[in-house]
Amino acid sequence: MAEGILVALRSLMASHSPKLDALIVPSEDYHQSEYVSERDKRREFVSGFTGSAGLALITANEALLWTDGRYFLQASQQLGGQWKLMRMGEDPAVDIWMADNLPKDAAIGVDPWCVSVDTAQRWEHAFAKKQQKLVQTSSNLVDEVWKSRPPLEINPVIVHPLEFSGRSVQEKLKDLREKLVQEKARAIIITALDEVAWLYNIRGTDVSYCPVVHAYAIVTLASAFFYVDKRKISSETSSYMLKNGIEVRDYSAVSSDVVLLASDQLTPSSSAIKAEHDIPKKIDSNSHEAGNDNVEEESSNNLVWVDGTCCFALYSKLNVDEVLKRPSPLGLAKALKNPVEMDGLKNAHIRDGAAVVQFLIWLDKQMQEFYGASGYFIEGDSVKKNDQPKSVKLTEVSVSDKLEEFRASKQHFRGLSFPTISSVGPNGAIIHYCPTVESCAELDPNSMYLFDSGAQYLDGTTDITRTVHFGKPTSHEKACYTAVLKGHIGLGNARFPNGTTGHTLDILARVPLWKDGLDYRHGTGHGIGSYLNVHEGPHQISFRPPARNVPLQPSMTVTDEPGYYEDGSFGIRLENVLIIKEADTKFNFGDKGYLSFEHITWAPYQRKLIDASLLVAEEIEWLNNYNSKCREILAPYLNATEMEWLKQATEPIDA
Amino acid sequence: MAEGILVALRSLMASHSPKLDALIVPSEDYHQSEYVSERDKRREFVSGFTGSAGLALITANEALLWTDGRYFLQASQQLGGQWKLMRMGEDPAVDIWMADNLPKDAAIGVDPWCVSVDTAQRWEHAFAKKQQKLVQTSSNLVDEVWKSRPPLEINPVIVHPLEFSGRSVQEKLKDLREKLVQEKARAIIITALDEVAWLYNIRGTDVSYCPVVHAYAIVTLASAFFYVDKRKISSETSSYMLKNGIEVRDYSAVSSDVVLLASDQLTPSSSAIKAEHDIPKKIDSNSHEAGNDNVEEESSNNLVWVDGTCCFALYSKLNVDEVLKRPSPLGLAKALKNPVEMDGLKNAHIRDGAAVVQFLIWLDKQMQEFYGASGYFIEGDSVKKNDQPKSVKLTEVSVSDKLEEFRASKQHFRGLSFPTISSVGPNGAIIHYCPTVESCAELDPNSMYLFDSGAQYLDGTTDITRTVHFGKPTSHEKACYTAVLKGHIGLGNARFPNGTTGHTLDILARVPLWKDGLDYRHGTGHGIGSYLNVHEGPHQISFRPPARNVPLQPSMTVTDEPGYYEDGSFGIRLENVLIIKEADTKFNFGDKGYLSFEHITWAPYQRKLIDASLLVAEEIEWLNNYNSKCREILAPYLNATEMEWLKQATEPIDA
Repeated sequence: MAEGILVALRSLMASHSPKLDALIVPSEDYHQSEYVSERDKRREFVSGFTGSAGLALITANEALLWTDGRYFLQASQQLGGQWKLMRMGEDPAVDIWMADNLPKDAAIGVDPWCVSVDTAQRWEHAFAKKQQKLVQTSSNLVDEVWKSRPPLEINPVIVHPLEFSGRSVQEKLKDLREKLVQEKARAIIITALDEVAWLYNIRGTDVSYCPVVHAYAIVTLASAFFYVDKRKISSETSSYMLKNGIEVRDYSAVSSDVVLLASDQLTPSSSAIKAEHDIPKKIDSNSHEAGNDNVEEESSNNLVWVDGTCCFALYSKLNVDEVLKRPSPLGLAKALKNPVEMDGLKNAHIRDGAAVVQFLIWLDKQMQEFYGASGYFIEGDSVKKNDQPKSVKLTEVSVSDKLEEFRASKQHFRGLSFPTISSVGPNGAIIHYCPTVESCAELDPNSMYLFDSGAQYLDGTTDITRTVHFGKPTSHEKACYTAVLKGHIGLGNARFPNGTTGHTLDILARVPLWKDGLDYRHGTGHGIGSYLNVHEGPHQISFRPPARNVPLQPSMTVTDEPGYYEDGSFGIRLENVLIIKEADTKFNFGDKGYLSFEHITWAPYQRKLIDASLLVAEEIEWLNNYNSKCREILAPYLNATEMEWLKQATEPIDA
Repeated sequence: MAEGILVALRSLMASHSPKLDALIVPSEDYHQSEYVSERDKRREFVSGFTGSAGLALITANEALLWTDGRYFLQASQQLGGQWKLMRMGEDPAVDIWMADNLPKDAAIGVDPWCVSVDTAQRWEHAFAKKQQKLVQTSSNLVDEVWKSRPPLEINPVIVHPLEFSGRSVQEKLKDLREKLVQEKARAIIITALDEVAWLYNIRGTDVSYCPVVHAYAIVTLASAFFYVDKRKISSETSSYMLKNGIEVRDYSAVSSDVVLLASDQLTPSSSAIKAEHDIPKKIDSNSHEAGNDNVEEESSNNLVWVDGTCCFALYSKLNVDEVLKRPSPLGLAKALKNPVEMDGLKNAHIRDGAAVVQFLIWLDKQMQEFYGASGYFIEGDSVKKNDQPKSVKLTEVSVSDKLEEFRASKQHFRGLSFPTISSVGPNGAIIHYCPTVESCAELDPNSMYLFDSGAQYLDGTTDITRTVHFGKPTSHEKACYTAVLKGHIGLGNARFPNGTTGHTLDILARVPLWKDGLDYRHGTGHGIGSYLNVHEGPHQISFRPPARNVPLQPSMTVTDEPGYYEDGSFGIRLENVLIIKEADTKFNFGDKGYLSFEHITWAPYQRKLIDASLLVAEEIEWLNNYNSKCREILAPYLNATEMEWLKQATEPIDA
């Protein structure tokens, strides 16, 4: 079947005008989303590779898939024989490969809605030296061959109330318009789904795991537009939009409206309310106090702001001279959580931590009862295969379903925030492993078990990873766990001056691993949304030099998740969510102000896996302090039996 | 008088054709050197500021001096009233300032020999938006007004023997020509003095502290040229050059020879030997084994390689289309020390360490005898001013002279490697303080004393900093010293995978300081030459993202020198030289290979200043190990009394 897809695509490529020498199939949807809806999983459909990141390239004779280090193992297992895996960071990058391997004057097709302007321009630059051309296909060729493509879903747009969002849409629009004026822009096109949802304080269920709506927004100095399938708008949502001066237009109208915007002819219909009192004046040191409308002043605000992630299709409709291509101001605004969002995130993480502890208690009991394991606390002898009672079978999927159950019982639960990574032994070494019912492994009392999971709650998004062992871990596994824990603490316990980027801090999570010649092939931290995407920028903690040097700033969220992975044996990762805050340092050299992290994730680290002799006093003190807070904070959510278990799990470690 | 200089310069600017609106006076000489000869200190002459880095700008009404954080305090003290200090990193950069503050169409003059092509092009780019022009002055205007400019010195060019250089000039030329062929270049112009000295295995005394010769080199695939004042060439050196196929030409001939080179007409005189057997063949997978001269092949090697630091004057004579502007290959080649150089560096550092220990012993005795100090080992009460016996006066300059004496007594000594920083109390907070006989401070038994010094030995260049106290340090001083020491150990004791840059590692030296809200405003490490410049690249350890991401590599040298500076009170810095080597890690994740540092500097850290309660076991173990090695390694160079002192200074610290 997979081969049939390639044959069909190659036939469409040959009959396309112009004839295509290659077709690029990106992972992204029309909004450059990381997680996409089922009907947008075009790259997965053509290649069979289910990972979240990757790019497929189909030529007349070859089919190649690029993906990053997280997915090398998984992709090599999932790709069919006609596909070649291209390892990012090791093999040539996709644009270099195309420029080097495709013929002179080659026509390389892509659906311009599925690729960002930044990426498209980078490709065009690489193609120039051999006069190769990036061709915008007029339709999506994959959709044409995808007979069983899931149908469009009509999910309602839900207003996200102020008690959770913390800032009204009027205030957000006012802030945004001030930024437009500062940058001499008359409008901004917003294509990222989480930015649209954040700006308009709306949520939806169009994409699994991300409570967003398939929609675009255009905001001018005078008007605001919301492009969405109108069948998703209830009368309540409709009046909310009207009240806030946001005009709802059909999703597909964004294309023609951007053409109008390019010639400055995009105006709201007469029924829409103009929020004129919110239009900021142009900043002008010589501005006259008297309200004399100044035509010259207005005409100088002539730019249209787009982010580099804007789809190439919309970007191509603008006048190049009038484009302000720079990171959307909503990225940073969204990352800086307001006090209501911070409180919500903290509360969501407490409930989530309680669910994780309840899951661990349940799993501990199951592993002892049904697999003869020595359990979470006791380091017994390893269990022989034959000794395992077989009355119940626990699998990676069945236990992660149970974890979801515990979460679902908590207030404000709205679903998971990403597919749970539930992995036994060797599967833990597949960094973004996603078990399936058909093929997943059984729990094993002699193996490490890694689970990386999170949920969406109305008041916040969560993301936590713990690695546990219910039998007898080897001393190597303990040493590796302890090295990962040391990195996790070293980063999470750091203090640093204002202006420091996550890239600078990344090494703190790695040095304890490097001491032993160990490392991990992924970044160390990402921002997390407020009942929004589990991954958000613009900051990150990564060993890769960032494209944008956005420093870590107070009220940002960020994860702290180092790991260690031994192919074929086990994986270890520990992850907490942190909020950046001002640090109370003894001194303040250079008057820079110093920052630190507040951990908001609450679940114990397994003491049995910690080799305390490898810890220094500061680390032990941190652990004991974290443990005692765990008890205190989770107590209201646990019953007496559960608290007994948690008390044992959080006993202080001796220095 | 200083005002007279500005008046005279402004008069020359006004009569220059075209009339100059501004004149830039860089710190650099015709070779973009960091340390320059007295007659090249033009920026110091016009501004009065003696620091090693800075740039002066003179306009019709203003005189501004840019310098970096190391020099803010010093510059503010040295600059006259007509000068304005511009703080790099805080105030606008010089090109931004000029573009913003000088009029449209302004003519901005600079001597094109004193500015690099990279800098000149950056300025030209900034000037473009207001049609400002960078004007290459035909003569150096500063030289014209500098009546007392020191005369040219005729110092001999000395051949640096193979027993110290470790690699012959023939081998180095062969390596270089292979790189030229790889990059399709037919020649390279070498303007950096240390690169010329390294390539041709020659040394000189044209610049204080740097054993280099004022000279240029041009190397083509067939010939090698050495541009130098011929009066500096002895008959021995002359025959060495002849033997190695290097043609000696007059220093000033480089200008017309680069014009010839541009049109591919630069040929050696008939008397010179062509080292034809060393000319590498062009790399061609289809090359014929038979030696058929292929004209086409040769013509494809048509580029002229220049480093971005090449002076703008020479660069301007080349055809833009034929320039390969990229970092000189000699930078990395010189940084990767060969085994002979590594042995030499280690030996030089042992003799140098012995001199430092002898100096500390001498100073300890002096401070007790003449100032009533409790001494290096004992933390006595602070000494009252009146109690100080006054028979002998020790000053920052007199004690650093004594330190030089100890060094000068060692084998292969050839002078200091930079002006000794010898600073008492508050002067220690001036990061690159340079005491003068007239104004320097007296030693003080109640103050910290910081000395940063090094020497040139035939077998290696040294650079070491220690901070000591001969009385009663405050607990704050001890806490700060210990934080700096922790950073010094944290970096020096690190292990890291191949591919890691010094920029990534920099934070390891800062985290212990950041914990308390402390920091320092300078980089953490630089390469060091092999009887060459004390500062060399292309790698470095710095918080600034590097222009070039050159990873740390085995056999490179690098310093480890964090500090802490409290304006008006004291300065602390600890510096060792390290050699990068392969680490014997337990594992080798990702087959990257892991690296570590070998300390080659030997002198104790003052135990009295260490608050051992702030150290972790690993740090104490490292210190005790370093101390015991110190005793062992320095023993052959110290007498019995000196060894007694060193034994006490290196007693193990209790965990």
